[in-house]
Amino acid sequence: MSILIVGSTALDSIKTPKAENPRLLGGSASHAAVAASFFSPVKLVGVVGDDFPRRYVQLYKRHRIDLGGLQILRVKTFHWSGEYEANMNHRRTLLTELGVFETFTPTLPKSHQNSPFVLLANIAPSLQHHVLNQMRRPKFVVADTMDLWLNIALADLLKLLKRLDAFVLNDSEAHQLTTEDNVFSALKKIHKLGPKYVIIKKGSHGSILSGPRGFFICPAYPLHKVVDPTGAGDSFVGGFMGYLATARGGVEENIRRAMIYGSVVASFCCEGFGLKRTTRVTRANIDKRVRELERLTHF
Amino acid sequence: MSILIVGSTALDSIKTPKAENPRLLGGSASHAAVAASFFSPVKLVGVVGDDFPRRYVQLYKRHRIDLGGLQILRVKTFHWSGEYEANMNHRRTLLTELGVFETFTPTLPKSHQNSPFVLLANIAPSLQHHVLNQMRRPKFVVADTMDLWLNIALADLLKLLKRLDAFVLNDSEAHQLTTEDNVFSALKKIHKLGPKYVIIKKGSHGSILSGPRGFFICPAYPLHKVVDPTGAGDSFVGGFMGYLATARGGVEENIRRAMIYGSVVASFCCEGFGLKRTTRVTRANIDKRVRELERLTHF
Repeated sequence: MSILIVGSTALDSIKTPKAENPRLLGGSASHAAVAASFFSPVKLVGVVGDDFPRRYVQLYKRHRIDLGGLQILRVKTFHWSGEYEANMNHRRTLLTELGVFETFTPTLPKSHQNSPFVLLANIAPSLQHHVLNQMRRPKFVVADTMDLWLNIALADLLKLLKRLDAFVLNDSEAHQLTTEDNVFSALKKIHKLGPKYVIIKKGSHGSILSGPRGFFICPAYPLHKVVDPTGAGDSFVGGFMGYLATARGGVEENIRRAMIYGSVVASFCCEGFGLKRTTRVTRANIDKRVRELERLTHF
Repeated sequence: MSILIVGSTALDSIKTPKAENPRLLGGSASHAAVAASFFSPVKLVGVVGDDFPRRYVQLYKRHRIDLGGLQILRVKTFHWSGEYEANMNHRRTLLTELGVFETFTPTLPKSHQNSPFVLLANIAPSLQHHVLNQMRRPKFVVADTMDLWLNIALADLLKLLKRLDAFVLNDSEAHQLTTEDNVFSALKKIHKLGPKYVIIKKGSHGSILSGPRGFFICPAYPLHKVVDPTGAGDSFVGGFMGYLATARGGVEENIRRAMIYGSVVASFCCEGFGLKRTTRVTRANIDKRVRELERLTHF
């Protein structure tokens, strides 16, 4: 089944101690859409400027991503620039040029309003609401977020939580939202805010699902080298939704495996700058790492 | 089969934001010995002073720990005092009174020299060597360590690594030893220093085994509340060795399950001050959490 994905579409300039890569294709929706495209048809909702490189449109198209919901405005594309420390665990933002996102309010094409799966990738909660308002009875709605929205748009985010089936956030955001140091206590508190499923991402330590049947401890795929972790969380949630939308049976039976698939796509994302590695991956590469994760966790 | 365990035997005074507990039974050997005792006969090698409370001797005995290798000297017992921050991830040492450990050099009783399994729990590497020198062809030798020995006794520790089957350390120690930020790259470097098996402990994020058949990603048991993590790493390695020493078949077939058992005993350790919770645990309690971990990681 098809997935509608809304989020940021950006140009990312990323510095690490070893390299500098200007104006890569980035943004939560780009990473999530490419990740989901390995499994399901994807409809992307986003906005870019007239400076958006044509080769990035081609890249979306190679992944058979429906661009009917991608607006092109006569303003600059959203541009983010960040720098990572040597251990890749800390980054700082050098620059944020909102550009097209200063005025973006997406109106969905009719063809997009019936998507059974909706992924509200990281973007302002008001925009996540705006997209959700236009959907007709979606089957499964997931949202991701970031610390910025907890700081400046908490009321909107809390309202959104009541409209979701699943909410995905990272461990430091979970701490910020609940003031709980313990991840399992944080999960309990977040359920009370609305979502049936809550997933806390812990980077290289994997992720934790909490749902009606209890917890699932999802491992990260072991990587000897992280080139650029930008977009790994978006790739996780994209791969997760892509797998869920295509798997036979209900959400409950497939959600653990969906996390494993998300985790594997995220591992590829970390192995190259921007989307460079992810776009060279095949479904067979993904399935191989999933089988490896089975062996790596079996006891 | 029996396990010989050498390490520190201490009185721990532990402060957390919520409570203060003076002169608890502590030390790496105490935690490891109690943890191992759920699975195998344990011979403890250590030293205490004449101020060592009789009830702690009784506690060892209730766990059927052989005290033939426990010296009692007319000096004060080793006393450590530490304080945890609210999130339980950071602690600082308030006081270290070496006492009996200023002069301790254990001479093993004959009955102890044939133990097939040897656990060199955290203590000065020179003492770990000294004990190992007295053993007759042990089947499996494991050592744990701490940052202090990496700082002040690195040469001894590096010599020890060549004599081990398995080496256990935590993630920050692995970073200190190898200067690698990436845990999998660190594991690779540590193998080159000698041990066939290397285990890196990551606290609430679980642990990673590296051995001839590759990696094993071992989860931590989910705890909603950590009362006192002191001794959790010692309990892990004690439970690990206890299970290994008693399991049918070779080390390779049992080592993953041994880590799961170690992880579960460590989870109980965290739920009470000192050994308070661990000593009330039954084998049935442990087996139940192992089954839960199976469910929590299955996909």
